[in-house]
Amino acid sequence: MRAAIKRGTRIVCDEIADPVPGPGQVLVRTAACGICGSDLHAVHHTDLVARLYQIVGVPNAPNPGIDMVFGHEFSGELLDFGPATERKLKPGALVTSVPRLNDVSGTHVVGYSNRFPGGYAERMVLSEAMLLEVPNGLSAVHAALTEPFAVGEHAVAMADMQAATAALVVGCGPVGLAVIAALKARSFGPVIAADFAPGRRRLAERLGADVIIDPSEKSPHQSWQDYGIPITRADRGQMLAAGHKPGRAIIFECVGVPGVLQTIVEEAPSTSQILVVGVCMEPDRFEPGIAIAKELEFRFCYGYTADEFAQTLRNIAEGRIDAAPVVTSRIGLSSVPDAFAALATPGEEVKIIIEPSRP
Amino acid sequence: MRAAIKRGTRIVCDEIADPVPGPGQVLVRTAACGICGSDLHAVHHTDLVARLYQIVGVPNAPNPGIDMVFGHEFSGELLDFGPATERKLKPGALVTSVPRLNDVSGTHVVGYSNRFPGGYAERMVLSEAMLLEVPNGLSAVHAALTEPFAVGEHAVAMADMQAATAALVVGCGPVGLAVIAALKARSFGPVIAADFAPGRRRLAERLGADVIIDPSEKSPHQSWQDYGIPITRADRGQMLAAGHKPGRAIIFECVGVPGVLQTIVEEAPSTSQILVVGVCMEPDRFEPGIAIAKELEFRFCYGYTADEFAQTLRNIAEGRIDAAPVVTSRIGLSSVPDAFAALATPGEEVKIIIEPSRP
Repeated sequence: MRAAIKRGTRIVCDEIADPVPGPGQVLVRTAACGICGSDLHAVHHTDLVARLYQIVGVPNAPNPGIDMVFGHEFSGELLDFGPATERKLKPGALVTSVPRLNDVSGTHVVGYSNRFPGGYAERMVLSEAMLLEVPNGLSAVHAALTEPFAVGEHAVAMADMQAATAALVVGCGPVGLAVIAALKARSFGPVIAADFAPGRRRLAERLGADVIIDPSEKSPHQSWQDYGIPITRADRGQMLAAGHKPGRAIIFECVGVPGVLQTIVEEAPSTSQILVVGVCMEPDRFEPGIAIAKELEFRFCYGYTADEFAQTLRNIAEGRIDAAPVVTSRIGLSSVPDAFAALATPGEEVKIIIEPSRP
Repeated sequence: MRAAIKRGTRIVCDEIADPVPGPGQVLVRTAACGICGSDLHAVHHTDLVARLYQIVGVPNAPNPGIDMVFGHEFSGELLDFGPATERKLKPGALVTSVPRLNDVSGTHVVGYSNRFPGGYAERMVLSEAMLLEVPNGLSAVHAALTEPFAVGEHAVAMADMQAATAALVVGCGPVGLAVIAALKARSFGPVIAADFAPGRRRLAERLGADVIIDPSEKSPHQSWQDYGIPITRADRGQMLAAGHKPGRAIIFECVGVPGVLQTIVEEAPSTSQILVVGVCMEPDRFEPGIAIAKELEFRFCYGYTADEFAQTLRNIAEGRIDAAPVVTSRIGLSSVPDAFAALATPGEEVKIIIEPSRP
């Protein structure tokens, strides 16, 4: 079958062996698969991905020297069953799944495995036990958005939103947009969204953000007081003493490049809860003294639970999340190398979807 | 009156004008006052202290170019009353107070004010409304420990201890010892204490730590599994799936020098809550990617509430906290310059108490 393969530090299109479903596994025709920022990073830093595996405790870490087929944001058509399967779904069913696959050697992460190809290929094997049938006639392309939007669902679940009157989302790439969507799916708000790119700001608005800020024009932290959130601890203390119940700023860091956290530390109100959702893989520098004086909280978020993934699929299929606008391009496998080159420079692309059946 | 004065970047003993209590204020004879690590820092970096004032929202920041008398960990004998005072306490009463003083220009921090001398002087003025009478015949020296121990009370109040089976205190200087005392005053535990200095480890044990670790011999993170706390997210997930309720590691960072946080990020179990209590005034560097993969939480802690301060005084006076062992030296005002020099090099000193009445 055809696949866009990570080979060394490049993406190349080539033929690879068809995967064969083992016990408890199914064969799927990949219908759609998103390109994730983590994939762009992993082309060059497979060793760091392997290190994260070790930290999280997932076995079968990828080897940088061996070919790998990315793709962990996928949907597909059920084709066939391996041995020891329950076969509750019918061939032809449109499915998605958390990108985890079990075999005798333990868990594999679909999309970062040297052994099992991810969604950048015409076919994949998946664990039958983890399949979710795509409901409500949702399209394959939009079903493939379940995974990136589940990241937002998880981050919002980790936030202390009941203490908040307003939430700020810093960065409106796929992660920030997923957070905005998850906040609005739960009717939280006002949601303030900040991004330097006009196209991303427009998408933030499409996904329901209530206030859109261009950080080159003004700091997104200028308006907290408008939402009943005092800036300093002294002001907070005075509000409490006067019998008011001040809100708490909730800030989602969805950029993931060095320096963003320090800017938030400098500008955020006292007692802010900062959900760190953007994955910064380089060392970062900040001033703990300021974070202490403000009594900030950093909560680092990663992935999602199976329940959050399933809830996200329902949210998209039932219209609580309008995922469609984040898809900025749809391409075939042969265009994946060019897409990686294009995404290396920040621009207006948000989510590029690979459809392996495209010519 | 005599005082140990911060003048430029030195401490000098000299005569200064006696303070005169204004409206709502009282005059106190300083009985005892601790030297705090923040004072050692502030001799050279008054500008950074002023910056923290601005962040917290406290007015009347100190000016590096003007003389200042440190001392915010004090007890004293009530001598006299200014105008517009209620005079409920009698002259001769032993008192302490949160180091805050109000006048028409707003709040001043006692010990970091160019206008009001702190406890490194024979006499001070304090706000009558903030006075706490020292109960139970507690000595002046031990009453002066209320302030540093209140820091521990606050940090423990900010920790998610109900989710924890064990707590680790990294660094057993005055801050770490205060945390240990506050944990044990609430009967939390086991409390694991780690410090490179043998004397500080002995003090940690005196204050009730259950497990004492020399980090030069083994990592304090080696034993989490003994307390039912899984190391990786995958292990945590498996425990949950098997119907167990895994504990969560609670870690108090009480060192406050660059690099300590990164070591904790590298070694701590997944989902650890890290209370950052040691005040690191320099920029620090860490790897967010690891913190994300582990879903760590940093909660930065600063100061205490008036209630926590009062509770700490009761804890010491009623024997729930044995504060006495932390006092490693008692000196007069003329020895303060030498004490600052001695404390500049880490050693076995923990809390040096100034008694201005000593020759």
